[in-house]
Amino acid sequence: MSLFEITQTDKKTSARAGVLHTAHGDIATPCFMPVGTQATVKSLDPQDLEHLGAQIVLSNTYHLHLRPGEDIIAKAGGLHRFMQWNGPILTDSGGFQVFSLGAQKKKKASRATMEAITPQEAAVAPADAKTDDIANDQGALVAIDNDGVTFRSHIDGSKHRFTPESATDIQHKLGADIIMAFDECTPDDANDASAREALARTHAWAKRSFAAHHARTPLHGYPQYLFGIIQGAQHKNLREESARFISSLPFDGIAIGGESVGYNMDATKDILEWVMPLIPQDVPHYAMGVGFSPLDIFEVVERGIDMFDCVSPTRMARNGSLFVHPQTFAQTESKSAPRTLRLNITNARFATDFGPIDPHCACSVCATYSRAYVHHLFDANELLAYRLATLHNLSFLMTLMKNMRAAIAAGSFLSFKQEWTQSF
Amino acid sequence: MSLFEITQTDKKTSARAGVLHTAHGDIATPCFMPVGTQATVKSLDPQDLEHLGAQIVLSNTYHLHLRPGEDIIAKAGGLHRFMQWNGPILTDSGGFQVFSLGAQKKKKASRATMEAITPQEAAVAPADAKTDDIANDQGALVAIDNDGVTFRSHIDGSKHRFTPESATDIQHKLGADIIMAFDECTPDDANDASAREALARTHAWAKRSFAAHHARTPLHGYPQYLFGIIQGAQHKNLREESARFISSLPFDGIAIGGESVGYNMDATKDILEWVMPLIPQDVPHYAMGVGFSPLDIFEVVERGIDMFDCVSPTRMARNGSLFVHPQTFAQTESKSAPRTLRLNITNARFATDFGPIDPHCACSVCATYSRAYVHHLFDANELLAYRLATLHNLSFLMTLMKNMRAAIAAGSFLSFKQEWTQSF
Repeated sequence: MSLFEITQTDKKTSARAGVLHTAHGDIATPCFMPVGTQATVKSLDPQDLEHLGAQIVLSNTYHLHLRPGEDIIAKAGGLHRFMQWNGPILTDSGGFQVFSLGAQKKKKASRATMEAITPQEAAVAPADAKTDDIANDQGALVAIDNDGVTFRSHIDGSKHRFTPESATDIQHKLGADIIMAFDECTPDDANDASAREALARTHAWAKRSFAAHHARTPLHGYPQYLFGIIQGAQHKNLREESARFISSLPFDGIAIGGESVGYNMDATKDILEWVMPLIPQDVPHYAMGVGFSPLDIFEVVERGIDMFDCVSPTRMARNGSLFVHPQTFAQTESKSAPRTLRLNITNARFATDFGPIDPHCACSVCATYSRAYVHHLFDANELLAYRLATLHNLSFLMTLMKNMRAAIAAGSFLSFKQEWTQSF
Repeated sequence: MSLFEITQTDKKTSARAGVLHTAHGDIATPCFMPVGTQATVKSLDPQDLEHLGAQIVLSNTYHLHLRPGEDIIAKAGGLHRFMQWNGPILTDSGGFQVFSLGAQKKKKASRATMEAITPQEAAVAPADAKTDDIANDQGALVAIDNDGVTFRSHIDGSKHRFTPESATDIQHKLGADIIMAFDECTPDDANDASAREALARTHAWAKRSFAAHHARTPLHGYPQYLFGIIQGAQHKNLREESARFISSLPFDGIAIGGESVGYNMDATKDILEWVMPLIPQDVPHYAMGVGFSPLDIFEVVERGIDMFDCVSPTRMARNGSLFVHPQTFAQTESKSAPRTLRLNITNARFATDFGPIDPHCACSVCATYSRAYVHHLFDANELLAYRLATLHNLSFLMTLMKNMRAAIAAGSFLSFKQEWTQSF
């Protein structure tokens, strides 16, 4: 049985529905993947994830290598057993995290709107938006060479080195069902020369990741699938070159990476327009970092993306920023508000609002608690606030994805999209 | 139907088993009451509480008055509906919190061992041990007079006033099943004159609380029961006088309060020895603040106590201090360690320990997760750490209490106590 099976393709767009078959279960696509950076989706337990319909959890090589270390997780029997999540897992290779150690200091301000974190967490580790909790001043990118990358831990400043071989080896030990090639995530504003140099490394490293992956004896007794990553910053020619190169290797899936993917949707749409016609259609397509807004999801699914992840839904939840349906958004926010489909429950007007977070949401939080109570929990810095907000935001996305898959299957993707976007 | 029914009395000790009948359900006694200061047991939701077998939750008049305010909770339909916990609730009157605002500054150091709080919470509000999260420097006791107490909020420094009438009125609005008379909690080291003066106020306020309670029209359509509180610091004559006075009023239950109750078990045993023979046996007996160690619970139950609460099991959980059975404690801690029946999961030796927190514990956390994983969650400051630790500590106590009640019913309380204490 192959990893991926396409069950339906939309006639009017490139959207498709499918199934990813893994040893830890099937994943219906298109699919949003909740982020569990440090072997836990912040504030939730695996039962919560199961109840809200998460099909797969994403975790992170950089973070798990530093803490608790891949050897401890291997000894525990792998990441599934360590965190007691028996569903599918995908681990990012750590490339994004390592490179954002260098980039984030200058970029902090520009991503201020996404730096949502609880006040409690901020005291422990200030965090950048896309990199889950690694903005500690001790972390630093030390050196990049053609063989690999040397960096300092954001936790204790200790020196570490990743190569395509070591990043792959760590991911073997962690034992995720889907693992990622080690890549160099080029900043958006890289000039042509430096983006070209970085891309050459990313491609060489893709080959080495592939070779290392296929040279090993499987550690955990089930298949691990390896995805390649297309880079190339905002350069059309480099993105096309990368799409062709990554497609030339028989990866199990193809990802589109880069700083702007998911965080600048205009740039993201450009990139997808360049690369999607060039990559094989029969493998899963993964847009890394998409899901800041429910509306962004429509844009990438429409263009043929099957999988995506983003820390924003969970991180912003912990800051009180909660997804609502367009109808609810129109009632709670002014017309000039950005079309985020979020309300901020910490706003004073919710203190005496005894209705649910979103009357159009069927999640357990909306069925149970009032805006006034959730507002109180945030106001009082109560830990339950983060859990309820995270449950709501993830449930919201899981329901959206379920309905989107049904719409694709029914041939009505575009009219479903219009239901969500017509109020704007 | 009366509030309290004694179903079994132990022949060799003063221990008894019984049932408290409330409009929100029956409570089997003796019973440990988890503390949900701000309308939430920190990190848990009501379903968690139900699953772990909590029979009643304690909340706090001082905290809820300041945030979100009793009027908001009344508008929500009362505390049960506000927090969506449909079981019984008890609210403390706020006397302890108000008076500890004055006492805590000088006492902070002496209670250092109990100041267990997450690093994340510490950033938001440093906290004293017995007063759940009110050690902010803005909080202050402004003035005590015979009519009531004026104090400053620990949140924003705003001035507030409690009288027996207002504390009772707030508790009516909150709608707990059991409410407490407004008392003056005298420091342990109060001299005879000041303890006597405070006690005179506590007794006058007990009468006024009683009168205010019985003068009101019930707001929520179900009975609320009022308990009186015995004070008198460490003075035998005052404690006896207080026991006689509080017993002379037809309160629905009798509580024993004071700074040392639960925090100094030798002093607690003295106090119980003085007061227990003087109070009616047919009403519930509540020792306020007991439950720091499982072993403390045996001491008060043996002396005829039916109900008790303590923030330590939940607060210390959030600091990684986890209850274990005596056998496990003997295996993990040195013989000279204080007999706390706790292990500190943040200790480095647990990083590679793949066994459960306590192999003798049947809770869902011990059935599911390893010490290594819980250690990792604490090490990484993950929110799930606090939830799992809290679930474990409370489940541990709920099981202990269930077994203790069964032992009383079976006439084997003392041998059950010996099983727990013989290793020391």
